[in-house]
Formats: sequence, structure tokens, C-alpha cells
Amino acid sequence: MAAHGRHTVHAVHHHFGWDRSLSPVLRVTPGSTVAFECHEASGGQITAISTATDVPKLDFARVNPVNGPVLVEGAQPGDVLKVTIESFVPSGFGWTAVIPGFGLLADDFKTPALHLWRYEAGGRVPANFATIGRVPIRPFAGTIGVAPAEPGLHSIVPPRRVGGNMDIRDLSAGVELYLPIEVEGALFSVGDTHAAQGDGEVCGTAIESPMTAVLTLDVIKGSNIESPRFTTPGSVTRHVDTKGYEVTTGIGPDLMQGARDAVRRMIDLLCRRHALAAADAYMLCSVAGDLRVSEIVDMPNWVVSFYFPRIVLD
Amino acid sequence: MAAHGRHTVHAVHHHFGWDRSLSPVLRVTPGSTVAFECHEASGGQITAISTATDVPKLDFARVNPVNGPVLVEGAQPGDVLKVTIESFVPSGFGWTAVIPGFGLLADDFKTPALHLWRYEAGGRVPANFATIGRVPIRPFAGTIGVAPAEPGLHSIVPPRRVGGNMDIRDLSAGVELYLPIEVEGALFSVGDTHAAQGDGEVCGTAIESPMTAVLTLDVIKGSNIESPRFTTPGSVTRHVDTKGYEVTTGIGPDLMQGARDAVRRMIDLLCRRHALAAADAYMLCSVAGDLRVSEIVDMPNWVVSFYFPRIVLD
Repeated sequence: MAAHGRHTVHAVHHHFGWDRSLSPVLRVTPGSTVAFECHEASGGQITAISTATDVPKLDFARVNPVNGPVLVEGAQPGDVLKVTIESFVPSGFGWTAVIPGFGLLADDFKTPALHLWRYEAGGRVPANFATIGRVPIRPFAGTIGVAPAEPGLHSIVPPRRVGGNMDIRDLSAGVELYLPIEVEGALFSVGDTHAAQGDGEVCGTAIESPMTAVLTLDVIKGSNIESPRFTTPGSVTRHVDTKGYEVTTGIGPDLMQGARDAVRRMIDLLCRRHALAAADAYMLCSVAGDLRVSEIVDMPNWVVSFYFPRIVLD
Repeated sequence: MAAHGRHTVHAVHHHFGWDRSLSPVLRVTPGSTVAFECHEASGGQITAISTATDVPKLDFARVNPVNGPVLVEGAQPGDVLKVTIESFVPSGFGWTAVIPGFGLLADDFKTPALHLWRYEAGGRVPANFATIGRVPIRPFAGTIGVAPAEPGLHSIVPPRRVGGNMDIRDLSAGVELYLPIEVEGALFSVGDTHAAQGDGEVCGTAIESPMTAVLTLDVIKGSNIESPRFTTPGSVTRHVDTKGYEVTTGIGPDLMQGARDAVRRMIDLLCRRHALAAADAYMLCSVAGDLRVSEIVDMPNWVVSFYFPRIVLD
């Protein structure tokens, strides 16, 4: 049954992993606007009464439930799905965790940690981190994509050519996202909403937060692309950059090692300067700091830099 | 002879490569402000009458001449050199090149290319790229550092723990840069000034431009750091971000391959949309676009994104 205009994919209509054989929960015509009632990344395994001892019990087969799939009529392999990100309605609850075995510095952080957030649901005021930090809110969907062509069930964790768990913190309201379509009807799903995150998502989690995402789905015929791309309407850092940044570097021939060095040095700096616990500094880096490649050409050493916005702790 | 107050290291006082045995051209007390008359990266090999045929003739033994070294009295190994970046006086002339064998996409771009820039020396108006592009000016020093402890002459090309050719585009006016000191007197040098560059410097060159850099050199005793870090006073993207960005992605298990994929896809997009030659798009990406790591935790696939500011071509 195709439907026009505004639709809702309710929280109950979610799935785990990508699979082209899943039955669509909604069929829409191109140009339709849909509200998705998204779960947070644990799918209810972490709640407002959870503690760090619950973190190692997370069942990864049940992480990142996504709402959908939505079939877009007329969409064919080789077309592009244009997703206009209209708005988010955040819930005001969120969590950030250090999950053993997961995250950029998994070798350094083997003890689970959990921070629970309560933030103003309108997203107009920063989320407090105890009494010492204020993280500006900028909601987006961590997982957004379409079904891959390959048959079978594919893990939700890695992102792919067709999108998925990309955790791109700039996929926020006002953005136009373009996804390559690999199956008839596109089979679009979205979830894993975040209230805030920096580039890199270095500890492995953002401010994981349930919220409603309102998106418009359209089809561009025959304009094949190789991987997701998007257009932002303006600045992507205005919410955090007014007081500038503290920046640490990692310099050497391996980008991954450079990234680890830069983040480790920022954690050291924040701990020293603000008397933070290392796990708290790591989580703040993940929800607010940005991993950038300053140069990738001065053989054989590259510079990876980690930018932490001073507004968070000043 | 130690001197107080304002000093100048003239253009003639430059050297090639890092070497702790070089004699200082100036001795200053901590807190001194010094003007450095910096050469552009070719050290005069590329001029306002050069063409692309001159690019392969570049002698890499003579690239990145740096002004100095300046001995800072009392500086010892284990101290930190604090460099306050006061201001730049740009020259109005610059060049950007595709140098065969150099740059992130050296395998794709084997033909030399050269773009010569004339920009308003005050840096208040964007530099025109023919009639189609406008690149906002934001001067900084590509090469800034101190002598490494290891004896001998070290190539200027790779950056190191002690700084050097870091090509960090945010080392602009107002920034405080902290460098680890490895030799007595620090032996500070600076050069390779750029009128504009994006994160990554993907084609291998920026808007290479001679200019005077005014810096204050100070010593922080005993506060050893592992690699350069810096503090910015405010936004680092305000000059380019008002119209937002076009963003392409590279998704996979290797950060270097992801970076190459993201930049290739941006070049394709710019060429298609603006009828640019590929080498021109590559150079514009290098002087204005940013390489960011969107996520580095969703095993086994990372997302590297390339952000091109729409203000340049809109």
C-alpha cells in the first residue's frame, strides 16, 4: 500500500542487521516525509538505572536496532536515494560508555565505564557532564542506510558502501544525504541516534539517545555514486567552536597510530588540567572532540590532530 | 649577543634541513618577539613566470628553506618552547603545484601542473582561481620547529616529534604552539609559509607564498611534552564555512585508502559539476578542503570524509 505525505515508522518496527530479504514495514512514493521513532544504540539494554557493571553484558547481536525497512517505490539499483534530514526530536536521556574491547584505545581502557546524561530535550542548552563539562547538543543518526545487494544477514556494526553505521556527526538537520541504491525499493532504515559526537567517535560511543528523526526520501534516477556523500547548509562546528580548541598531535608513518597518539595526549592533557578520571576524559573526547588529518603528504610522516573544543571545560 | 625586544631574521638567514650543529643566526632571551622574512617552499625555484614544465625540475634538496636557527637562552632539553603566533604579512604572490611522485593521489596524477596566484596582500579578500574559484586567505607557517637531538642533517620533508614540516593549517595568527625542546637553546626555525590550505594538504602543496611571520618565543621549564600541541583562540573554519560543505566519503578498513577514495570522489564531483580539469580540482581540494576521520571505531570499517567548502565555487 503506497502512501503519500507524512508517515510514521514506530519504535516497534525495527530490525537488527542488514538483509535485503526483510519485508518492508512501509511503502512510500518518492518525496514522502517519514518520522522514525528511533531507539538508542543499546536497544534498551542500557537504561536510566544502569551502571558500569551492565556495560560488559551488552549483547552485540542486539545493538543498533534500526527502524525500517522502508520501500521507496520506483527505486532501482544504480539510482541514488536522496535523504533530506528535516529534524530531530531528542528525548533528553542519553548514555556514553567505555566498552571493553571496543573503541580506538581499547588496549588502554579495559575497565567498563558508563555515563548517563539528562539534557534539555529541545537541545538548546548543553548537556552537563557532572559539574565540570558542558557538551553542546547536535542530534544526528549514527546509522542510516539502505540494504546491500549481497543476500543474507549482514552485521550492523561496520558501515558499508550503502551507508549504515557511519557515525558521521554532521548528518544533522538541514543536510542532504545521498546513498547508492543496490536493491529494488532501496529498503531504507535509520537508528542509533546521537545527541552529540565528535569526529572519530573515539571511545566507540556518542551521547547515545533515543529520538524521533524526520526524513524526506527521494529517488534520483540513474545517478550512480560509489559511496555516501552529503551537503551541509552551513558550518558544522559553530555549536562548539566559539572558544577555540586545544589540539594535540600524533606524527608518524601510520595514520591509526597517529590517531591513537593524538587522542592519548589529549586525554593526558585534560586529566592533568581538569583533574578528570581518564575514562571521563576519553568519553568527553568521544562526544565533543574531532579527529582531523592535518597533512597526509610529507613522506613518510603524517600528522593526525585531535581538536578538543575549549567551550566544554572552560 | 643576546638581544631584547623586536628582532628580524632576514631572508638571507635560512638553512635547508634540520641539524643541531648549525650556528644560530640570532640569540634571544625568552619572551622576545622576532619577525622572520620567510621564503615560499621552493626557495625561489618557482616564480611568477614559471610554468608547469618547471615543476619536475624542482630540486628537493633546496625545498622548504627555513629562517633560523634562533637560539633561545636558557632553553634546555625537556623544556617546552612556547611560540605565540602574532601575525603574518603576506606577499600577495603564491603558487600551487601537482608534483609527479608527490601527493596523496600521486598514482592518479602523473602530469605536472602549476597554478600561480595573485591575491590581495592584506589577506582580506579571497584569492581568485581563474574566474571560477575564490579561496579565503588564512596565512600560516607550514614548517615550524626546533632542532632534533640526533646529530647530523635531517631532511626537512617529514615532520617529527619536534615539529618541522607539519603543514597544520590552523597554526595561524593568535595561536599558541608548544614544541618539545631536545637541544640547548632550542634552535628554532620557521618557513614554508602558506596563504591557505585545507586539512591534509592533499595534492602536496598549499598556496605556497613568501611572507613575514612575527612570533614570540618563550620557554616553559621542565614541562616535557611528547609532540607538538597548540591552542586556538576561536573557530578554525569561520573563514570558509558560511555556505556549508560538499562531503564525500571513503569507507573501509584502511585509513589511507579511505582518504584516497574520499578525495578522488570529491575531485570527480567538482569536475562534473563545475567543468573543472581534474588537476585544478585536486589543487583546489588541497588549498581549501578538509580531510576528517568521521569514525574510527566501527570495526572493521572506518569512515574518512573530505569536506569541500561550498563558498569556493558557489
